[in-house]
Amino acid sequence: MLLLAFNSLFSEISKPENILLGIEVLGLVAFAASGAIAALKKDLDPIGCLVVGTVAGIGGGTARDIILDIPVFWMHDKFLYSLNICLLTSLVFYLFGKRLALRENIVNWFDAVGLSLFAVQGYIIGMEAAGNVEIAMFTGVLTGCGGGFLRDICLTRQPFIFRGEFYASAALVGLFIQWLANMPILSGVAIFAIRACTIKWHWRFK
Amino acid sequence: MLLLAFNSLFSEISKPENILLGIEVLGLVAFAASGAIAALKKDLDPIGCLVVGTVAGIGGGTARDIILDIPVFWMHDKFLYSLNICLLTSLVFYLFGKRLALRENIVNWFDAVGLSLFAVQGYIIGMEAAGNVEIAMFTGVLTGCGGGFLRDICLTRQPFIFRGEFYASAALVGLFIQWLANMPILSGVAIFAIRACTIKWHWRFK
Amino acid sequence: MLLLAFNSLFSEISKPENILLGIEVLGLVAFAASGAIAALKKDLDPIGCLVVGTVAGIGGGTARDIILDIPVFWMHDKFLYSLNICLLTSLVFYLFGKRLALRENIVNWFDAVGLSLFAVQGYIIGMEAAGNVEIAMFTGVLTGCGGGFLRDICLTRQPFIFRGEFYASAALVGLFIQWLANMPILSGVAIFAIRACTIKWHWRFK
Repeated sequence: MLLLAFNSLFSEISKPENILLGIEVLGLVAFAASGAIAALKKDLDPIGCLVVGTVAGIGGGTARDIILDIPVFWMHDKFLYSLNICLLTSLVFYLFGKRLALRENIVNWFDAVGLSLFAVQGYIIGMEAAGNVEIAMFTGVLTGCGGGFLRDICLTRQPFIFRGEFYASAALVGLFIQWLANMPILSGVAIFAIRACTIKWHWRFK
Repeated sequence: MLLLAFNSLFSEISKPENILLGIEVLGLVAFAASGAIAALKKDLDPIGCLVVGTVAGIGGGTARDIILDIPVFWMHDKFLYSLNICLLTSLVFYLFGKRLALRENIVNWFDAVGLSLFAVQGYIIGMEAAGNVEIAMFTGVLTGCGGGFLRDICLTRQPFIFRGEFYASAALVGLFIQWLANMPILSGVAIFAIRACTIKWHWRFK
Repeated sequence: MLLLAFNSLFSEISKPENILLGIEVLGLVAFAASGAIAALKKDLDPIGCLVVGTVAGIGGGTARDIILDIPVFWMHDKFLYSLNICLLTSLVFYLFGKRLALRENIVNWFDAVGLSLFAVQGYIIGMEAAGNVEIAMFTGVLTGCGGGFLRDICLTRQPFIFRGEFYASAALVGLFIQWLANMPILSGVAIFAIRACTIKWHWRFK
């Protein structure tokens, strides 16, 4: 009985659309966690933690949708799952994350997954909405990097993406691959790989 | 003759829709004053005072309308009264408010009125536009707190709502009451009461 | 042959609509340069330079279009020329502009051209979209000053327009002239003249 339930759960999870959804959820969790942890480090109250976590999670996509003049994505989600995942993640990190806040590295890895997915997703959405490669590149970078940018503006600190690490540039390289090859998975993996090298060996512009 | 004019003015003022309008005007004045005073404290020029005051007054509702993808409220006001009230209030405070800027407490009380009204108003507008309680809560908090948040970002200082006082949380409690009881006046009073206690006895998260 | 090509190029350039386009391009270049130089001074990486330059160039018009709820202008440009001019200018300044970054004065003169044009252009667009003089004034000031404002927010420094120089006020004076006389060139020249005096003799509010 339990075995059957597990089996059906597993076959549900392994459907392609659910794998994609799973990666998106992981990305939202990662970005929200990065916001909540940054808020904890600045010693904000629980509301600050929730706000900054949520801004980090859905801010990039919201900016993209406003500029493209399409409905803001998370307002039409089933059960508002994007918003709720961000709120829940931020809350969990506020309650239990003080120790984790000292080990930023774990979050960087989540964040790399989120960037890879959101950049490619933003490219595809921009391509659909505007039908222009350059705008799609723009919306891809905006979706991937916008959340972290707004998180840092909320915390009145210099945005992370300006600090010399390969971040927006990693997204750009991946989106060039997406443009040339139209292979979302390959370009996502490329973004993740560049970020991984950056995190491990501190690749920098200068 | 003068008595008649006063009488007709008074009966005009005491109509319910005009009472609501009066509270809204008070809220706009309070938020614009908070922005103008904060700008004065940072020693900004008159333009800075006007801009920060106006952003504080109408910024929350503007952000709400852009995210909901409905027309920005103050662009369709009769005589643009929301915009003009904010500009006028900021100007008056720039000219005469230097001494008042030392007594922030007065502004806190105005601000509490503004928060109470704008949060409930934002909830109702969000409910109409999206038909979803959670989005209505979101737009309620955004309308109530967004102006002060953008004011602080303009002044490149840590947003007030992150500093541990009950502020966004007061709005949330009131909006829960609005959800359960659907009594705008009650929930507005609740928000005001929590803010009043916070101002008087410095209630804090920690 | 070469002479003929030059001749046709010159007659093309001297058409009125192309003169206007030329001024707009100059304005975009000036604002993008101001952003790129400000980013260089803060020692940002190339991505930061591109982002801040582009935000400075097209940020004001983007904010205007979002608030007016009309399509964002640079997304429907032929060849996305506004966006590309900003990106290209920022890149050129990142590569070759380190020495120029020490001589801010040159940029101030470009910037004055940009402000003059963008303020008048924003007025005309606001007038078309909303049919109201005050909103047109608002969108004119927003278009002219918004890019520089967002540039400074990105760099987490106090916005330039708040620092006491005649800047937004210069735009306002010009737009009053535009309202009274409906002569775009005159009002643009007025804005430029006030900015020129401010740059040369440091006219200030106090």
